[in-house]
Amino acid sequence: MSNPTEETALLPTTNGASTSSPFDTALWSGSMVSTIFIVMQAIIIAFFIAGTTYSESEYSVKEYIAFRDIMAMLLLGFGYLMTFLQKYGMGAVGFTMMLSILSMELNIVVEFCVRLLYGEKGEDTAWPMPISMTTLIDSEFAAATLMITFGAIIGRASPLQMIIICISQSFFNAFNKVILVLGMIGAEDVGGSMTIHMFGAYFGLAVSYAMGGPKDMGAEASMMPDKVSDIMALIGTTILWVYWPSFVGATETGEPNNEYHCVINTILSLMASTTVTFYLSQKFNHGKFDPVHIANSTLAGGVAIGSAARLNIGPGYATITGVLAGTASVCGYVYSSPILESKLGIFDTCGVGNLHGYPSLVGALLSVAFIALDSEADFLRDSMGSQMLRQLGGILSTLVISIVSGYGTGLFISTFKGGATPTFKDSVWWHLEY
Amino acid sequence: MSNPTEETALLPTTNGASTSSPFDTALWSGSMVSTIFIVMQAIIIAFFIAGTTYSESEYSVKEYIAFRDIMAMLLLGFGYLMTFLQKYGMGAVGFTMMLSILSMELNIVVEFCVRLLYGEKGEDTAWPMPISMTTLIDSEFAAATLMITFGAIIGRASPLQMIIICISQSFFNAFNKVILVLGMIGAEDVGGSMTIHMFGAYFGLAVSYAMGGPKDMGAEASMMPDKVSDIMALIGTTILWVYWPSFVGATETGEPNNEYHCVINTILSLMASTTVTFYLSQKFNHGKFDPVHIANSTLAGGVAIGSAARLNIGPGYATITGVLAGTASVCGYVYSSPILESKLGIFDTCGVGNLHGYPSLVGALLSVAFIALDSEADFLRDSMGSQMLRQLGGILSTLVISIVSGYGTGLFISTFKGGATPTFKDSVWWHLEY
Amino acid sequence: MSNPTEETALLPTTNGASTSSPFDTALWSGSMVSTIFIVMQAIIIAFFIAGTTYSESEYSVKEYIAFRDIMAMLLLGFGYLMTFLQKYGMGAVGFTMMLSILSMELNIVVEFCVRLLYGEKGEDTAWPMPISMTTLIDSEFAAATLMITFGAIIGRASPLQMIIICISQSFFNAFNKVILVLGMIGAEDVGGSMTIHMFGAYFGLAVSYAMGGPKDMGAEASMMPDKVSDIMALIGTTILWVYWPSFVGATETGEPNNEYHCVINTILSLMASTTVTFYLSQKFNHGKFDPVHIANSTLAGGVAIGSAARLNIGPGYATITGVLAGTASVCGYVYSSPILESKLGIFDTCGVGNLHGYPSLVGALLSVAFIALDSEADFLRDSMGSQMLRQLGGILSTLVISIVSGYGTGLFISTFKGGATPTFKDSVWWHLEY
Repeated sequence: MSNPTEETALLPTTNGASTSSPFDTALWSGSMVSTIFIVMQAIIIAFFIAGTTYSESEYSVKEYIAFRDIMAMLLLGFGYLMTFLQKYGMGAVGFTMMLSILSMELNIVVEFCVRLLYGEKGEDTAWPMPISMTTLIDSEFAAATLMITFGAIIGRASPLQMIIICISQSFFNAFNKVILVLGMIGAEDVGGSMTIHMFGAYFGLAVSYAMGGPKDMGAEASMMPDKVSDIMALIGTTILWVYWPSFVGATETGEPNNEYHCVINTILSLMASTTVTFYLSQKFNHGKFDPVHIANSTLAGGVAIGSAARLNIGPGYATITGVLAGTASVCGYVYSSPILESKLGIFDTCGVGNLHGYPSLVGALLSVAFIALDSEADFLRDSMGSQMLRQLGGILSTLVISIVSGYGTGLFISTFKGGATPTFKDSVWWHLEY
Repeated sequence: MSNPTEETALLPTTNGASTSSPFDTALWSGSMVSTIFIVMQAIIIAFFIAGTTYSESEYSVKEYIAFRDIMAMLLLGFGYLMTFLQKYGMGAVGFTMMLSILSMELNIVVEFCVRLLYGEKGEDTAWPMPISMTTLIDSEFAAATLMITFGAIIGRASPLQMIIICISQSFFNAFNKVILVLGMIGAEDVGGSMTIHMFGAYFGLAVSYAMGGPKDMGAEASMMPDKVSDIMALIGTTILWVYWPSFVGATETGEPNNEYHCVINTILSLMASTTVTFYLSQKFNHGKFDPVHIANSTLAGGVAIGSAARLNIGPGYATITGVLAGTASVCGYVYSSPILESKLGIFDTCGVGNLHGYPSLVGALLSVAFIALDSEADFLRDSMGSQMLRQLGGILSTLVISIVSGYGTGLFISTFKGGATPTFKDSVWWHLEY
Repeated sequence: MSNPTEETALLPTTNGASTSSPFDTALWSGSMVSTIFIVMQAIIIAFFIAGTTYSESEYSVKEYIAFRDIMAMLLLGFGYLMTFLQKYGMGAVGFTMMLSILSMELNIVVEFCVRLLYGEKGEDTAWPMPISMTTLIDSEFAAATLMITFGAIIGRASPLQMIIICISQSFFNAFNKVILVLGMIGAEDVGGSMTIHMFGAYFGLAVSYAMGGPKDMGAEASMMPDKVSDIMALIGTTILWVYWPSFVGATETGEPNNEYHCVINTILSLMASTTVTFYLSQKFNHGKFDPVHIANSTLAGGVAIGSAARLNIGPGYATITGVLAGTASVCGYVYSSPILESKLGIFDTCGVGNLHGYPSLVGALLSVAFIALDSEADFLRDSMGSQMLRQLGGILSTLVISIVSGYGTGLFISTFKGGATPTFKDSVWWHLEY
């Protein structure tokens, strides 16, 4: 083991000449991070001791399996998907771990408070609050939303900025999901096309717009993948692909019919987005496949099926959902990203606008129409026409809340010191010896 | 993100001087691939919309878990196992994804048609066809067969050639499995030693024989592993090891006794092939372990147990199956591969003849004898002696169909343009910036 | 495929000038390894044929899922966690595979014999012995114990030495677990804080103490991670994190309440150790995160919760367990490792004393107090005060047996030839072509 107690070994490595400012920033960020960590952990422990209990009666091993599958998506899936940045590998996997777990812990407290605020009846607001597998799965959904946002700004935000984003998003996301989309509006969104993917993507893009693009000159070179980072990233893609049906069906393990619809629709949609991505990628690239499309757009079918997954839409429409989502995603990378970046100054490191943004819009809009295919489903809040309006309301609410709160959060964190840190290099935040 | 809309960025990178021919080939291959993709996807979507439905009544979460485990074996297991080629990493994982998903989609249609042709009664040929988890697991088995074939020719075939192989094998594999081995012949083969491993391996070797060996001079250097590619490949090995029992028992989740036999026999056989591989590898290498053996032959026990897995053969014979399979596999790498390559011109990139070929022969032949240990099992088609003949018939049928159809497919794809593409380098098919 | 039949290709590659002694050592080690392998495999097969049977009646798919999850922890989790050694990647993953499987096979025989010796009644000593999923899960626990020990000496022991450690530990570990801790002493240790983590860590440290530190000069440079090895190691970390709850609850799949406690306590404890590790790591490093801490100490909560996991301690105390364990682990890396190494000459390659040693002590000592929170639990052997003493007895027994037997084993293997082999380089044991 390296010996990190010697002071000299602890001085940040600068890879050559550099002003000391990134390291001042790192030190300042570190001290703020420390304070926030301690306060958060103290609140969470106090809440867990004073205000929570177990809920043995609700335990089902199926829910545990769903929890575990989603955990693999968070730590391995999102983590490795972002390792395509060749100089930000520890940042990708390490910060994914830090932010996911922080977000989960925080969400257990925040979502409970939001439920109290909204006045939901029943066990959801019992005191002390029972921590069931459902509670933990909800907290994973919050962490997934954060990971999507993280993808938009990875390599350009300091740990302090990321933690502020985590805290801010935790509140606005729970507010949008619990009170608005699934509460007052009553939209159908079992797999989170709106409340997870759309919210995470547009919150992230709004933060990124407020922060501005990368400032230092070497950024473009640093964000190129290398041979290993491209293949590492596919670990993330394949893990996400494999466990995605568990993600979409995680809340339905007690309802086999609903779970079956979630699982089969997700699989068929993913298969369709995968094949269409391979087709379009080489179509747009003169016969060559683009690793960025393969790593991301293949998953668009999973993003898009989230709103309609529980509905009896049939294998054909599930496949069409995947085809449209994959198409939107690849076209996003080819046509939209360059324009957003150069014309609007919206920088999107991983292309979450293309993987989560457009496909979630496609999926949520399709869910409006798909209500007609299964309008009698007992889990819908309303009759056909009204439920369709509720779906539109869910989209509108998610877009407004995510963009406004994301932009505000971005403006706030832009006031911090930290503009001088190197972009897409994790060595300023990590004690690396190479 | 890189900006792939600029034409210049799209020109294939040639890594220095080269005639333009590989890129003409890539372009031509790409345009053919595009056409085939569109036609296939149109047929599949039309079939899904017009001819399929859900089958809620059959859903079991155990089957979903088996499906998901096998999906991990396909995308992560086979994908990373083939990354040992240091200049073909994106090709290994990316083409595995493309071909697996294409094969699964196609197989849903093809296997249904073959069942219709064969005239199986019952839900298997209901119209509209119900897509159950069993349907999807069957399609995964087809994809696994294709992945084995892919291993024989990886790095030497163009995407177009691989897709033709996918389509051709889909028909012949379903014909051999549904109509011959499990249909008219009635062999016991729950884990696919014959219908998956033997078929995939000998189809692949026959394709490879028809195609001829690698033509360009740099091939040998390109196929050497490097430090990272060797360790990456073990991700595939370990994923395959861990999920293999799910693969063998996937169709038996409704029969706990059968599932238990599948699971325990597979585990014991894998443990035995793993230990014997470590023993033999250093025995043949003057005390040193060979990464190729460890990455592959450790899994031979899983290949070989496939035919007899459901039988009550007892822990001892399951272990012996693994010992013999591991021995056959390591000896294949040491003695057989050099001869096949130099004398017969049968080139086998991943050594699928050694991992899937010999062990499947060992396992299928052992299953003839093992019938005697559990001849009263209710899932067997016949009394002891006749069932033994049925096992032999299954082997014969699989060898004949796979070799003849593989050779024919290989001859057909050899007529394509494409001989001039660099071998074991994926950069001609992938838009890489390094 | 490389052609390993040519004698010249088999000569060990020496990476330049070197005396021939490492290769003599390798040859001698190899021939001894061969002999031991053959004898062990013969004994195991004979035992399996003559003395074992199936136990269909006990099969539960939940147990199979737990088995499979732990298998992923062994082969992928432990295997990749140790790939941080940049020149020992094949050794890390390959030897993990070899030793885990050997240990599992051996433990099936050894634990049965130890149960016979102890005179446990019932199915545990039925003849022929039924091999159930429980038997296999117990063997995985033995393999996990060995993997912890392996972490202390990885890169410094020959395959022969490792196999001797495997055999020796198998007996002493079963003796401590079956006869002492869970037998005569009757301590509560469902997730193995004592019998797995504490035993493995202190056995390993005692072996390491007896062996002495690395002897060759280049050792320190070789044990530095590089960019890829650091990220590879996190594959192990994240796999271990995700599946850890299955590990702790593996024996309780038949008792939903107990399983729920195991799962939720483990998750909360892991979340707490993860957040506290990120906090402390940058605190000790002037604002920078240390990859060693993130790869290891984040898991300390899983180590520490093992003894008390089944108890109804509530979410708050589970979180506190994780906080204390993570703190102990990071402080171990910062303060304890340098002292142990320089003052006592106890070298610990992966820092298992910090990941498994201190956290297991923290967890086992906390379990003494936690008995008071759930003293009526039906699985406890005794009333509150006495059970607390039993917990202390379990700690004492584990420490004494592991240290004494580990030290003896270390002295024995130190008498072998092999001191001259290069440290932290696997090329002397692996047939690598780079």
